[in-house]
Amino acid sequence: MMDVPLTVPTILERVRTLYRDREVVSLLMAGRDQGGAPVAQVHRTTYGEVARRALHLASALKELGVRPGDRVATLAVNSYRHLEAYLGIPSMGAVLHTVNIRLHPDQTQWILNHAEDRVLIVENLFAAMIPSIRANCPKLEHIIVMGAGGPEGTLDYETLLAQASGDFEYPDLDERQAAAMCYTSGTTGNPKGVLYSHRSTVLHSLASAPKDALNVGERDVVMAIVPMFHVNAWGLPYTCAVAGAAQVFCGMFSDGVSVARMLEQEKVSITAGVPTIWMGLLAELDRAREAGQPYDLSRLESLVVGGSAAPEALIRAFQTRHGLTLRHAWGMTETHPIGTVSVMPPGVSLTSDEGYALQAKQGRRVPLVELELLSDLTDDGRVETLPHDGHTMGRLLARGPWVASSYYKGEGQANFIELSGKLWFDTGDIATLDERGYMHIQDRSKDLIKSGGEWISSVDLENALMAHPAVAQAAVIAIADPKWDERPLAVLVLRPGQQHPGHAELTAFLAPRFAKWWLPDAYEVVQSIPIGATGKFLKRELRDQFAGYTASGTAAR
Amino acid sequence: MMDVPLTVPTILERVRTLYRDREVVSLLMAGRDQGGAPVAQVHRTTYGEVARRALHLASALKELGVRPGDRVATLAVNSYRHLEAYLGIPSMGAVLHTVNIRLHPDQTQWILNHAEDRVLIVENLFAAMIPSIRANCPKLEHIIVMGAGGPEGTLDYETLLAQASGDFEYPDLDERQAAAMCYTSGTTGNPKGVLYSHRSTVLHSLASAPKDALNVGERDVVMAIVPMFHVNAWGLPYTCAVAGAAQVFCGMFSDGVSVARMLEQEKVSITAGVPTIWMGLLAELDRAREAGQPYDLSRLESLVVGGSAAPEALIRAFQTRHGLTLRHAWGMTETHPIGTVSVMPPGVSLTSDEGYALQAKQGRRVPLVELELLSDLTDDGRVETLPHDGHTMGRLLARGPWVASSYYKGEGQANFIELSGKLWFDTGDIATLDERGYMHIQDRSKDLIKSGGEWISSVDLENALMAHPAVAQAAVIAIADPKWDERPLAVLVLRPGQQHPGHAELTAFLAPRFAKWWLPDAYEVVQSIPIGATGKFLKRELRDQFAGYTASGTAAR
Repeated sequence: MMDVPLTVPTILERVRTLYRDREVVSLLMAGRDQGGAPVAQVHRTTYGEVARRALHLASALKELGVRPGDRVATLAVNSYRHLEAYLGIPSMGAVLHTVNIRLHPDQTQWILNHAEDRVLIVENLFAAMIPSIRANCPKLEHIIVMGAGGPEGTLDYETLLAQASGDFEYPDLDERQAAAMCYTSGTTGNPKGVLYSHRSTVLHSLASAPKDALNVGERDVVMAIVPMFHVNAWGLPYTCAVAGAAQVFCGMFSDGVSVARMLEQEKVSITAGVPTIWMGLLAELDRAREAGQPYDLSRLESLVVGGSAAPEALIRAFQTRHGLTLRHAWGMTETHPIGTVSVMPPGVSLTSDEGYALQAKQGRRVPLVELELLSDLTDDGRVETLPHDGHTMGRLLARGPWVASSYYKGEGQANFIELSGKLWFDTGDIATLDERGYMHIQDRSKDLIKSGGEWISSVDLENALMAHPAVAQAAVIAIADPKWDERPLAVLVLRPGQQHPGHAELTAFLAPRFAKWWLPDAYEVVQSIPIGATGKFLKRELRDQFAGYTASGTAAR
Repeated sequence: MMDVPLTVPTILERVRTLYRDREVVSLLMAGRDQGGAPVAQVHRTTYGEVARRALHLASALKELGVRPGDRVATLAVNSYRHLEAYLGIPSMGAVLHTVNIRLHPDQTQWILNHAEDRVLIVENLFAAMIPSIRANCPKLEHIIVMGAGGPEGTLDYETLLAQASGDFEYPDLDERQAAAMCYTSGTTGNPKGVLYSHRSTVLHSLASAPKDALNVGERDVVMAIVPMFHVNAWGLPYTCAVAGAAQVFCGMFSDGVSVARMLEQEKVSITAGVPTIWMGLLAELDRAREAGQPYDLSRLESLVVGGSAAPEALIRAFQTRHGLTLRHAWGMTETHPIGTVSVMPPGVSLTSDEGYALQAKQGRRVPLVELELLSDLTDDGRVETLPHDGHTMGRLLARGPWVASSYYKGEGQANFIELSGKLWFDTGDIATLDERGYMHIQDRSKDLIKSGGEWISSVDLENALMAHPAVAQAAVIAIADPKWDERPLAVLVLRPGQQHPGHAELTAFLAPRFAKWWLPDAYEVVQSIPIGATGKFLKRELRDQFAGYTASGTAAR
């Protein structure tokens, strides 16, 4: 067989030739209204034009002296321009390093320095960050600004593209060289970098396309709301490009109203985001229906949900009230990211109780990914793999051609372990796997509650509590207990106008679904739960806040 | 990223763990009735059982002394046992060499000797061939017979599996090592062997699954009628295994009645075969409907057609009379095989004239495959690539990670050419490519008619002629012409009870669709057109038969 490498240029060439008329739609910020609120403007282009500009970007970077293997960072929202960077940067041999726009400036700069980025492409929305970045990131040689208004000393993205030579030739690329780079969210310790290869990018885009994964084809219109700075937007920009699906980007407009309008107006068939986004959308769909002006989302086939687990109540609400299907996917920065996708097995109906219970799990591994469960250390100091029986919890290990084998600069080696001569990534998740391969995340290992030597899943309790009508958000954390070591405490944010339901009612609400010893010792109401840059609860902060708490309610805060 | 190789064992492990309860159904021959006709019997098993037995087969081969890289041949029809060979042989490091059961015995033996097969697994249906094979293939060390009645000195497949150790461990496999091997049909010269790697097998199974290719998922029931000895049944046994689709095999029963019954009874959703099979099925569906007992094929979503081009008339007949969709795919032994699949672009209806015209083309390249058109030698002795404009005909070149880079033992190097530093396979087909990438095979280069320096496509004329109500089969060949070098002659097989429509009527029938100089000079009726072992017209024999023919009808035969 021919030795044809799996590289990003094959994706760029595919859209440039086969799909050049397919649309790419972006919601850009056109300015602010008199009240200071951002005003959106729809921008329409095609894959042909995006591909042409991506090649100009590749040329321009080469002319700036960027060499194969150099890191080129982006600080940008989802848009056609970010897609140009996705296609153009790896195609000239450099590494696309997408930086989370929501980090603390110190952390952004720490990451730019750690990655030793030579070029930064920054959206004008974030121009205010430039002076500080320039002062603190000495290895950054060029800053390119997308959109008008870049400060002096920066390069204008449009001018650069216009001046670049159009006759770019792809360099010879090895499929194992890096195409992209992401940093973990770093809820513990410093963020760690993960390099994605050309090979893993192409393989992931093939394996995530079929109907039992994300089901992407040329007739689809896909809106990835999951940010392009977040694990390559779950690979969707590439998966869609390979398949020829139209892409819609809502940029900084991810509130329920903006999302609902874009889904309707662009006849979106597949969309993807974290649970928080879908909670916002659900509220808007409910409001519109009650107002007698429901949205027409008849073309919408699936809302892919990942990042954290979607409660079954949310899945049921979308299905029963709006006929819309949430589809769970699971992955991590280290798995590039898709490891599993929820899909109904033959014979199980989506709207049966069994179907809903399965949909609340994270699904089954996509082709080429392997999963395993590992025990804690046994008495004789060994670890062992655990049965896939649907109830035994273990540390989830992953392996596959798009799973990291190390972090950038060799950090965090403890997360990569060898079992019977094979390398596995320890996800830090606690999960179960059943006989048919359905994976169910129980907890992050550091969030798991260890009571009397047994494990209690905070995620399961949270999802159950969020189905209570008075509860908007729930986080369950471990509190120290002299007898059981740890016991669960539920920290709740109530829905507007709701009262604390009381210990007895909440206990009665949970009791039918959990063993008695799983039930929280107490339910505390707070105004808000701290949330990190990727939209997840910061339980570490909650644990600090409730350190020394006892069930009688007299916490030493 | 982890260095996880793309290998057949990952496919075997996937069905063994995730899809073990999914069904595998085979139509076996149970004996013969009093009239000597074969009697069919349905055999049902599961992927779990197939996987278990495949591992026993792998063990057994190892115990027989088969080493990595050794060739293990099969002479078998489509069945669960052949699927076991597909999964088991490559998983122990040997090369699955599927041999066409329809070849002349001399050619079968020539191929077994050329491939230097060490083991042959043969279905008892073909037991009569064993003595001669044994006498003429000295390198063959073991003959294993599937089914009862193997002659003395052969090994029984079931006994072998039962005695093999069940604790097989996969060897370390390099993804670029050979997993399988097929020989070309060899309509010119000796057959040539093509080695398929583990990598190409896995990549092909990923790229052929999405909805714009074969659209295979776990809920599908797939019946590959295309033989498993024919280019790995277009990769379907592997594609289905990766996706978890149930598989149905109709074995030696590929007549219209057997096929229609199996499609209905097993609720098949996807099936695949050559045009001849679909002609037989269409006749049976028409008959049943006219008899007031139509088949219920409501689960059937697509009939994949390849091997040779399906006439538009056949595509229309299935759609308009039975609501069934034929989906063109194109490939060759050298492309492992799928290069293109026909799929409607957004906005084009399947049942519009534009839709039918597109469906009669071979479709667009699947991800990772590249196609190019090459000119004949120019006046200054060079070749050049030709425009993709939908009408310029050129030699079709293919390139991709599942396209051959050479033949076994380095034969036929002239078919592999380098252009701008890249290797391409010269398919020997003459085709057009349009702006959107739709490929349309015009002819085999050797069958093309060169009239007055211009090219005439025999395939286009044949497909148009087969839409005439009197015509069952049509083959158009070149006859020598003193003025134009070559001119087209149409050789026809009439439908039962039909008369020769006459030169004037056929000319009038074709005239609206072709330039005047394309129209055949003559229309000759024959009883049958010679067909080769893979179901294609043997035009070489027709050309011999009509050598010296002149349009006045006085051929020197």
